[in-house]
Amino acid sequence: MKNIALLGATGSIGEQTIDVIRQHKDQFSLFALAFGRNSQKAIPMIREFQPEIVVVGSEQVRNEVAEATGHASIFIGEEGMKAASTAAEVDVLVNAVMGSVGLPSTLAAIRAQKTIAIANKETLVTAGHIVMAEAEKYNTPLIPVDSEHSAIFQALNGERQEDVRRLIITASGGSFRDNSREELEGVTVRDALNHPNWSMGAKITIDSASMMNKGLEVIEAHWLFDMPYDKIHVLQHRESVIHSLVEFKDKSVMAQLGSPDMRVPIQYALTYPKRLSFDDTESLELEELSKLNFQKMDMERFRCLKLAFDAGRAGGSMPTVLNAANEQAVAMFLEEEISFLDIETLVEKSLQEHKSVSTPSLSDIMEIDKETRERVKRYVK
Amino acid sequence: MKNIALLGATGSIGEQTIDVIRQHKDQFSLFALAFGRNSQKAIPMIREFQPEIVVVGSEQVRNEVAEATGHASIFIGEEGMKAASTAAEVDVLVNAVMGSVGLPSTLAAIRAQKTIAIANKETLVTAGHIVMAEAEKYNTPLIPVDSEHSAIFQALNGERQEDVRRLIITASGGSFRDNSREELEGVTVRDALNHPNWSMGAKITIDSASMMNKGLEVIEAHWLFDMPYDKIHVLQHRESVIHSLVEFKDKSVMAQLGSPDMRVPIQYALTYPKRLSFDDTESLELEELSKLNFQKMDMERFRCLKLAFDAGRAGGSMPTVLNAANEQAVAMFLEEEISFLDIETLVEKSLQEHKSVSTPSLSDIMEIDKETRERVKRYVK
Repeated sequence: MKNIALLGATGSIGEQTIDVIRQHKDQFSLFALAFGRNSQKAIPMIREFQPEIVVVGSEQVRNEVAEATGHASIFIGEEGMKAASTAAEVDVLVNAVMGSVGLPSTLAAIRAQKTIAIANKETLVTAGHIVMAEAEKYNTPLIPVDSEHSAIFQALNGERQEDVRRLIITASGGSFRDNSREELEGVTVRDALNHPNWSMGAKITIDSASMMNKGLEVIEAHWLFDMPYDKIHVLQHRESVIHSLVEFKDKSVMAQLGSPDMRVPIQYALTYPKRLSFDDTESLELEELSKLNFQKMDMERFRCLKLAFDAGRAGGSMPTVLNAANEQAVAMFLEEEISFLDIETLVEKSLQEHKSVSTPSLSDIMEIDKETRERVKRYVK
Repeated sequence: MKNIALLGATGSIGEQTIDVIRQHKDQFSLFALAFGRNSQKAIPMIREFQPEIVVVGSEQVRNEVAEATGHASIFIGEEGMKAASTAAEVDVLVNAVMGSVGLPSTLAAIRAQKTIAIANKETLVTAGHIVMAEAEKYNTPLIPVDSEHSAIFQALNGERQEDVRRLIITASGGSFRDNSREELEGVTVRDALNHPNWSMGAKITIDSASMMNKGLEVIEAHWLFDMPYDKIHVLQHRESVIHSLVEFKDKSVMAQLGSPDMRVPIQYALTYPKRLSFDDTESLELEELSKLNFQKMDMERFRCLKLAFDAGRAGGSMPTVLNAANEQAVAMFLEEEISFLDIETLVEKSLQEHKSVSTPSLSDIMEIDKETRERVKRYVK
């Protein structure tokens, strides 16, 4: 039996993690659960799984949850998340919170040598140099949850790092893959939220439409697999069936495939290096699909991807600015304060005006993150 | 430096193995070379690589080779092949001979605990139960060379046998994939030898056209990966880019891909578990291919595949009969003595009339093999 600490339980990855645990109650136990505000979603989870520790975002939410569930160990905020992540009983931390709020818990869990299923992109995008150095120092495994990184992780299974020629990250192309650059001018929030393959949260769906999600994944892959940017390639693949590939130096390519269902990589992160049956998901029937399509990624149409490669290569605090500017811009797009193409313009402007810090500390990162968001807000006033 | 013993040096796999060795002379040395008759091809190889041991098929060929190369250690026939395969200096045996003549050398090498790169299908098809039991007993690794089995072997890398849900072997469909059953009536030897993707020897190209090659691969996979026939699936895939796949019990699928070039799996078998650079082969560019196609394998149109599944499931000496009848029938087709569709008819008749031996010994196998060939010849007289 593995004890799981789940941070971000009410988000898309969190809910799917809950579902995986539900399907294997003989294998997994939900030891700790953390969420921010959505007590409506969290209360039934707490009732069902009776976690030892609950962490919430505020006093008010604590009161709601305490009243509804009678739970006696409800903590608040960062210290609670750290405690949940490092408790002696915990075997695996699933970090599925959104944004840089996930970072301190990840670092605490690394130091406590907990296996970490990492679904929090910001951890690696903004603080990859710190996180990976700590993971190496404490010999703590980081298992990716993102379908692309899980695919690469699986393709690297049993292989030597030095034998890799390049990583090939696939991209469905998002909601606007069939639109020209001109057509992107007038798109609405509703258009952008209509992802062709994956069911995900709003922020990541917008990031998929702008291709920034792929850009963040490239930076994440750079850190997670210790791979230079020149060896990371992005391939457009409409069906999201090949989740990503690794080419080795003998030109042999290993790929992981499957029906698009995030619960599969989530479960793999919980069971690695073993696998468990998964009856509730579709078997991939290539006969029925009949075709898989591939095309070159258009770096001009998807400027965010180019910005991400540039920020990644520049290094230092540039990825923090990329991520923070994008988060702020996406929030404003979702509020209909800016247009879709304003997102990339604001991110680019933020990068251009930032004076990079070469090896930012955690507090540098936090500060630059905050400054950048404020700056983006000022740009549109 | 790895010392290689190569049996079947002048066949298609043999020549390609020579090419792999040529490209990595700092890594591999050709210690022993065996071939049957084609001294025209072999003599330049012997001059270039100066193997310690040379084995040939007959006295006459020995004289030709001795005269042309001045080589002092030329052996003849089975005993020579066994000596070459088990010499103390040999690290890897590449068994690329055609037909059941490869079997005694494989068994000798297993007992001598040499790593075996196995390209000789008959070894496993006709004597899988003996070969695998010996390999287990002596803890000798068998590394497949066939692109499909190499793909499965690579996909299983780092995984647990018990986590496999099914093997998915891809089939290009061979020369006649776009022909109806009616159109197969009148096809010629030349039509059958025109394989769309792979450059291979005549026998295997005919087997690809009749789908018997895929059937033999299914039986080989059954033994090599200890997999029941119900867990082996065949998928038609025109482009031969996905060389095969493994579905695990969590419905995650691992696949190995590459441009169709047999030298890649050959090299992998020589370098496993490491990989070496391979500059002389094409990198797979899925963007340029643009599409991969899949379709259900038609078991009615390709009766040989069904016969192979049936013979494999029946077990005992049935696969020996399948293989021997097919070899004899293909030889007669290549000599234009029978029609293309006669191949499957003769194989089916041979299977129907054979009284299966449940656990045939090596000498049973040799005898049944011989009897079957004679019987097939009689059928057409």
